[in-house]
Amino acid sequence: MIKSKFIVIEGLEGAGKTNACICIKNLLKKNSIKNVLLVRQPGSTPIAEDIRRLIKKKFNDDNLIKETELLLMYAARIQLVEKKIKPALKNGIWVISDRHDLSSLAYQGGGLGIPKKIIYQLQSLFLNNFIPDLTIYLDVSPEIGLARALKRNPLDLIESRSLFFFKKTRRCYLEKSKLDKKTIIINANLNIKKVTQNITKKMLNWLNKQVI
Amino acid sequence: MIKSKFIVIEGLEGAGKTNACICIKNLLKKNSIKNVLLVRQPGSTPIAEDIRRLIKKKFNDDNLIKETELLLMYAARIQLVEKKIKPALKNGIWVISDRHDLSSLAYQGGGLGIPKKIIYQLQSLFLNNFIPDLTIYLDVSPEIGLARALKRNPLDLIESRSLFFFKKTRRCYLEKSKLDKKTIIINANLNIKKVTQNITKKMLNWLNKQVI
Repeated sequence: MIKSKFIVIEGLEGAGKTNACICIKNLLKKNSIKNVLLVRQPGSTPIAEDIRRLIKKKFNDDNLIKETELLLMYAARIQLVEKKIKPALKNGIWVISDRHDLSSLAYQGGGLGIPKKIIYQLQSLFLNNFIPDLTIYLDVSPEIGLARALKRNPLDLIESRSLFFFKKTRRCYLEKSKLDKKTIIINANLNIKKVTQNITKKMLNWLNKQVI
Repeated sequence: MIKSKFIVIEGLEGAGKTNACICIKNLLKKNSIKNVLLVRQPGSTPIAEDIRRLIKKKFNDDNLIKETELLLMYAARIQLVEKKIKPALKNGIWVISDRHDLSSLAYQGGGLGIPKKIIYQLQSLFLNNFIPDLTIYLDVSPEIGLARALKRNPLDLIESRSLFFFKKTRRCYLEKSKLDKKTIIINANLNIKKVTQNITKKMLNWLNKQVI
């Protein structure tokens, strides 16, 4: 039996993260891995979902400064990691997370311009060496991604940021993903069928390499 | 004219912080300092008040882990410091804050046992060298303080913690306050009249020493 793994899906709005999560869950099922927990960040515990609502809420006479946004993202993340992700992994359950701390580096670091040093320090102080076994980064151009997101729902507070913000976010995603051996980059500009095929192929390849 | 100052009131539940804030505000007024902003932590901006509600909310199937509590406290603090406290000071307004980051050291550090190193790092990453010009620590025994707090209102989530928790919190408060030259310790076990007299006396003394 393979030890349970922590798999993270990353990418801009409209990259196809939800589809990727479902695709991977089904693929694991087909490969006899049936205990799988799907979570999203920020969120997936009652407290973390409250933090998510707070981050996305529009205030008439206040707006989140970037450091507050970063700290709230970390608060939600630590709550989820300690209350659900770590206990699940300990109990042999695989975890697929829609976003994790690479999102903070890309959005609050790359996009909002908080020095990466600060984010690395938060990672080190609160996440220690808890890192994903695999990250799948769905690389989509902001133009294509946002057009897809807009078709689904009105854009939320973060999704409404400028194209320039998302370009900086994507640049950071790409830089980090290229350097990390545990990250697979998928071209998410293609249609959903092709993207799903590519994820399936790469995931199977990765799965076959895991110690049995 | 004296440059505007940032004054912090600290202490356990029932120490008399609210009274102290009002007493100091009146004292400043009598000494021709009329532009004074009173704030409380966590809180005092719409976002920070939402974070305060979240921290104090009881969840049926989730409870705040200590690191999440610390990060939420810092999120609220940074929002307040950047949006209100710093701009006020810049505009010549004095600020009196009911709690600041010494509370995190005492409660989440001393009381909950988060390593102080982690809290110092958060201070250094997010507050830089922004420190109060004066801290007044109202030292009360947990037994006396909690009895007073209980007379006012039912205890909230933090106030309901054990006596042992508050003893550790008080120990940390005292340790830090004794080491800090900008902190005045007031015996808050005495009755409110006596405490107010002592605060007034020490505040006047401090005020007279400020550069005019």
